[in-house]
Amino acid sequence: MFIIKKRFHFSAAHRLCSDAMSEAENFAAFGKCASPNYHGHNYVLDVAVTGEMNPLTGMVINYDELKRIVNDEIIEALDHKNLNMDVDFLRGEITTSENLARLIWERLAPRIKGARLYEITLGESNDNIATYRGEV
Amino acid sequence: MFIIKKRFHFSAAHRLCSDAMSEAENFAAFGKCASPNYHGHNYVLDVAVTGEMNPLTGMVINYDELKRIVNDEIIEALDHKNLNMDVDFLRGEITTSENLARLIWERLAPRIKGARLYEITLGESNDNIATYRGEV
Amino acid sequence: MFIIKKRFHFSAAHRLCSDAMSEAENFAAFGKCASPNYHGHNYVLDVAVTGEMNPLTGMVINYDELKRIVNDEIIEALDHKNLNMDVDFLRGEITTSENLARLIWERLAPRIKGARLYEITLGESNDNIATYRGEV
Amino acid sequence: MFIIKKRFHFSAAHRLCSDAMSEAENFAAFGKCASPNYHGHNYVLDVAVTGEMNPLTGMVINYDELKRIVNDEIIEALDHKNLNMDVDFLRGEITTSENLARLIWERLAPRIKGARLYEITLGESNDNIATYRGEV
Amino acid sequence: MFIIKKRFHFSAAHRLCSDAMSEAENFAAFGKCASPNYHGHNYVLDVAVTGEMNPLTGMVINYDELKRIVNDEIIEALDHKNLNMDVDFLRGEITTSENLARLIWERLAPRIKGARLYEITLGESNDNIATYRGEV
Amino acid sequence: MFIIKKRFHFSAAHRLCSDAMSEAENFAAFGKCASPNYHGHNYVLDVAVTGEMNPLTGMVINYDELKRIVNDEIIEALDHKNLNMDVDFLRGEITTSENLARLIWERLAPRIKGARLYEITLGESNDNIATYRGEV
Repeated sequence: MFIIKKRFHFSAAHRLCSDAMSEAENFAAFGKCASPNYHGHNYVLDVAVTGEMNPLTGMVINYDELKRIVNDEIIEALDHKNLNMDVDFLRGEITTSENLARLIWERLAPRIKGARLYEITLGESNDNIATYRGEV
Repeated sequence: MFIIKKRFHFSAAHRLCSDAMSEAENFAAFGKCASPNYHGHNYVLDVAVTGEMNPLTGMVINYDELKRIVNDEIIEALDHKNLNMDVDFLRGEITTSENLARLIWERLAPRIKGARLYEITLGESNDNIATYRGEV
Repeated sequence: MFIIKKRFHFSAAHRLCSDAMSEAENFAAFGKCASPNYHGHNYVLDVAVTGEMNPLTGMVINYDELKRIVNDEIIEALDHKNLNMDVDFLRGEITTSENLARLIWERLAPRIKGARLYEITLGESNDNIATYRGEV
Repeated sequence: MFIIKKRFHFSAAHRLCSDAMSEAENFAAFGKCASPNYHGHNYVLDVAVTGEMNPLTGMVINYDELKRIVNDEIIEALDHKNLNMDVDFLRGEITTSENLARLIWERLAPRIKGARLYEITLGESNDNIATYRGEV
Repeated sequence: MFIIKKRFHFSAAHRLCSDAMSEAENFAAFGKCASPNYHGHNYVLDVAVTGEMNPLTGMVINYDELKRIVNDEIIEALDHKNLNMDVDFLRGEITTSENLARLIWERLAPRIKGARLYEITLGESNDNIATYRGEV
Repeated sequence: MFIIKKRFHFSAAHRLCSDAMSEAENFAAFGKCASPNYHGHNYVLDVAVTGEMNPLTGMVINYDELKRIVNDEIIEALDHKNLNMDVDFLRGEITTSENLARLIWERLAPRIKGARLYEITLGESNDNIATYRGEV
């Protein structure tokens, strides 16, 4: 079994808040992460793919092809953006790291050809890291 | 499947030795790690939790709640301590990284509510890292 | 000569823009860093202090005292905030890393007693790092 | 379940190319990684082992014994070498990170006694990391 | 005083050898770094610039402009190359990290406008790092 | 001007306490770092050397020679030891990071030949780092 992981970086603003809760409830649930004018992170995104090794090339997936897909679908949309305001596929979503990992999975999984998405890991800091493995 | 990981740090002294062995046997088994007056490490502890995402909050577990539990149960007991001498729940135990990971698991697992402990990873350096997954 | 460095972290939103320039000029000057709804970073702040070693304690400055000062004056004000909107001592300032380093210096320098501030280093990412050394 | 991981480093030259392809095909498949006079990396090798904890020693495997095995079998053969030219057990192989991980697995698995090899992870940079888990 | 540092990465092959010495002398001087078929590294290059802060932009130098210059002059020439064979401005030079830092300084210094090159730091690994400060 | 830096690691136990103070005064001065049964760290030691580049070898100092000197004089004496009890040249000294940096300087400076010691940097964690530059 092979797992190929490529690391990406993006810097974005966000705040944690749910439209289904009042501001007071949001602060109770999310603490300082609900700060109204946003804060931000240097996110670290690890995209892991699994599959068979092509005996001709010795590769499961070409790192450059994976890079192109993730840059096109994710990094260009999220980097130097406000995750609560600027990103179509995050509209109305809570921007916790686990939910972002899930939504990035949903967007990337159909784009990986000849191999399968294995897991999405998103760190909003070195200390807080979420992993999502969906159905493929 | 979601895995939420939070990283903790503590600095502690220890030595590897078993009460069931003589000093000569301890040195044969543990080498310089048996040095009698202790040495120490900046330990890196990764606590990983799994569970369902609460659709209201977008969270599997609140990082702040996880932080409070691990600080209360583990970090306060181990940080700036001698692991062989100062810690009640390590009394009589060999302080290898794998055994420490197991003992931290035993202590934390019953305290995680609404989600399940997934794995405990304890690095005594960047090069030596032990992971334990117990029954839940 | 002794230099004592302590590292701090804060997560904040910002955008680069100058009130003296039009939006078009801001984009020309700052590129994607001028993105209107803010982006953000995990900032790494290194506070370096110099002075004589107290022979009684073996310390130039107590790390805990330095931590208390920087937390009180800087981290509490900046962490999980919008640097362009939420911080009194950054009002009207351009939030480039070099200007932030300078403004943090101005705020911290008079608070360090028994030693002198040596330099402020602020990294907005692992790749972009600014250092400021002012007059003391 | 215990997983013991030890990290190793080696610096080596390589290029990606397959004897089954022409130079033009190699460039089409591998891009700049096919550069003819080689390039190189500081490889990071993580060797993970699983097994039962010996109650007498509190260890799954002795880190020092693991270190000796991996140094003897792998690091001495690969460090400061050209992976395409200098290494017997890589002769005729494509030196992608996933194929190297597989070949290192094949070489190490029979040498681990009293525990089982769990996975081999080989990073050719912080961004490109391959994992292989074989049969044991 | 401001110092602006930007970090770059390139992967390259090299060997240490001097045309003025025999192979035996090269091995005596450089040990395994003289290995004949080359080895390689992930080099980390820090380019530090000093100057006045432009009050209109809050910048000493625009990180994007610095990035463009260093990519054009250095990274494109060195990345995925053999430093002993493929690079015009390294022809006949010994590729120690200190000499590379000096040669990168010579090439970059005249290209920095409106600010001055302050120092070049080149790490061939996390453990071996050379800094050069030339005349400006 | 060239600065050559080599990084070393050692793991040791210590506590902060001065023979000139009572236990109560030690706790007042050093807080949890005075914990009586010791704690410990993975210390990171950066040894920086300056000098002219030898045109024949392209080196200021041979990294391997520097490694041998620092291993012989420092690492062998400190690694896996108790800094308050086990080390001759630390006898009676307060083991703060700044004082350790000073004492390592005193021990290493006369051993560096053909180049000059530039600075000693000792980190007891990623957050607390002391630098000492003495007379040469």
